[in-house]
Amino acid sequence: MKSSWTPILWKRSSLRILDQRELPHHKVFITARSFHQVANAIQQMALRGAPLIGASAAYGYVLGLQEFLNKKKSSLKTPLKAWTELHFHLERVAKILKTSRPTAVSLFYAVNRMENQKNHFIAGHPASLSQALFKMLEQEAETIFEEDVKSCQKMAEDGSKLIPKEAMVMTYCNTGALATCGIGTALGVIRQSYAEGKIRQVYVCETRPYLQGSRLTLWELMQDKIPATLITDNMAAYLMKTEKIDAILVGADRIAANGDVANKIGTYALAIQARHHRIPFYVVAPTPTLDFQLPTGADIPIEQRSPQEVLRIGSSQITSGRASAWHPAFDVTPHELITALVTEKGIVEPPNEKTMGQLKGAG
Amino acid sequence: MKSSWTPILWKRSSLRILDQRELPHHKVFITARSFHQVANAIQQMALRGAPLIGASAAYGYVLGLQEFLNKKKSSLKTPLKAWTELHFHLERVAKILKTSRPTAVSLFYAVNRMENQKNHFIAGHPASLSQALFKMLEQEAETIFEEDVKSCQKMAEDGSKLIPKEAMVMTYCNTGALATCGIGTALGVIRQSYAEGKIRQVYVCETRPYLQGSRLTLWELMQDKIPATLITDNMAAYLMKTEKIDAILVGADRIAANGDVANKIGTYALAIQARHHRIPFYVVAPTPTLDFQLPTGADIPIEQRSPQEVLRIGSSQITSGRASAWHPAFDVTPHELITALVTEKGIVEPPNEKTMGQLKGAG
Repeated sequence: MKSSWTPILWKRSSLRILDQRELPHHKVFITARSFHQVANAIQQMALRGAPLIGASAAYGYVLGLQEFLNKKKSSLKTPLKAWTELHFHLERVAKILKTSRPTAVSLFYAVNRMENQKNHFIAGHPASLSQALFKMLEQEAETIFEEDVKSCQKMAEDGSKLIPKEAMVMTYCNTGALATCGIGTALGVIRQSYAEGKIRQVYVCETRPYLQGSRLTLWELMQDKIPATLITDNMAAYLMKTEKIDAILVGADRIAANGDVANKIGTYALAIQARHHRIPFYVVAPTPTLDFQLPTGADIPIEQRSPQEVLRIGSSQITSGRASAWHPAFDVTPHELITALVTEKGIVEPPNEKTMGQLKGAG
Repeated sequence: MKSSWTPILWKRSSLRILDQRELPHHKVFITARSFHQVANAIQQMALRGAPLIGASAAYGYVLGLQEFLNKKKSSLKTPLKAWTELHFHLERVAKILKTSRPTAVSLFYAVNRMENQKNHFIAGHPASLSQALFKMLEQEAETIFEEDVKSCQKMAEDGSKLIPKEAMVMTYCNTGALATCGIGTALGVIRQSYAEGKIRQVYVCETRPYLQGSRLTLWELMQDKIPATLITDNMAAYLMKTEKIDAILVGADRIAANGDVANKIGTYALAIQARHHRIPFYVVAPTPTLDFQLPTGADIPIEQRSPQEVLRIGSSQITSGRASAWHPAFDVTPHELITALVTEKGIVEPPNEKTMGQLKGAG
């Protein structure tokens, strides 16, 4: 299924990125040959979704090394000078990649892994600067990618056990094959449940302002021929009241030690509405999304994006003149509103300060 | 303020309608010379807002009579035949106007008043078919219009007593001068409160799919230089949590005998979120919005509009191919979630089966 529109594809000296801003109307690819291009693609949301951002940043780090190796091949006189320069260069690469977006912790997780691998290599090869480092880092990026593929599969299989037969489910934003390296997080659970014959209907919230629901999730579901109906975000509560919704499934960008979840703006509203209607609210996210450094969701940095993105839809201005707008890209859902957290290391039900401990050391 | 963009303007033989679908980008007027044109303008949402729909339908009824008088002037041989034909014609006019949209009860209220007036005239003038009937019905339409102007002013003055100093308020859809014959319902209260120096900031929900908030309310507030910030509908809950919101004000399309309120889709979600954050949730609506015939909100007919209106934003398709969508134009907020109902006949706080009785006979 993913072959023709895999969101990122590593091509050894470049990363091919499907520009998700153009979907579903146009399939446009960006060929990133530098870490800067990868950072820009993340910042400008040509690619998005926490797990995918993580893997992309890892490949961005590899491109950063490649740029250095290509430039310095002839000019580096001594191994010591080369190491020093490489050190400063890769520090800059890591910093720029990490600051491309502030909320999704997978980004930091992946770049940190690349840095650790680099340090490990340097410790073992104190005097040689070679393609061996490139190969090792490329391998690490591939591993990060492959681990996410497997995590998606595991979460889908475990998570689908929470879904009853003949289920009507609701989902938010895009948590599918376009947001991950595999079949998705929340949408992976829905895919698996559908494969098991349990899904009657998927309701997709359009997810303003970027419309990841209408542009991306609906498109993924239609490709898989899973019955899906689009709603505007403000219809969700009324749908919960008038139709029997069995479960709401969302992803996550960062999860604090007490189980509070930062996810796409609007998730918090959905969770309140789910609680009001006593509908199970599931968060599906791999353990690289966990941030045990932060005690609660109040500590998670929330990205503020340009008000222009709220004042426009696509290329159309929807207001007059110099209107002002507020644009937090994420919100925080307190763990009290979350029925269960599905990770590849197990299901935490309900997530809280104590139960989250079972995932400690896993993330 | 309203002079240059009054939403409807009666010009004796026609009704000039500001086409609100084109706002805020273009100021386009429709000149309706037949009741069919008025019904179409209502159905296609060139004009909207329960009080404005009511007054427009009243003028539509006058146009229906005018069409009859123009056509039949010479051909009617006997008064009896004329009366019979007029009777059938005006029955058809009333029916078509009443079926233009199903939820806003003001439509039925206004057309019923016109029919009663017509019956009253016929009872008093059994043998004469003249311009006198036209004048009487025209006067009734003007009265309906003027009563709404006064109701808006009264609700604004009473409602503003509920608003504290330095208030941060939130509003939904458009309930202003574009939705009524006067300064608005919920937005009228906000205007009055601002004039009294009590409003620090108004947060406007964009109100998908028609974007009445971003296109119309934000525009009205900017014209009045009232500080306003746009949010997408899914940001409301997070805003309630992170900013001190003092009150949420909305309008209504129909209110049942127990105080349940049908209003623009998304109102119910906001009311749940307001309750979760213990923020007062006020409904501002004139008594023609009351429908004591219906015991509860479950009995209010909810208009289902075309899924195409959800799949598109303006002229842009936001999904691929043959996607399906759900499009209820309204939802019902149970009275338990409403702090107070502000009408021109008084404030009901809280609205319920018993307290609503004080408005009985008023609507």
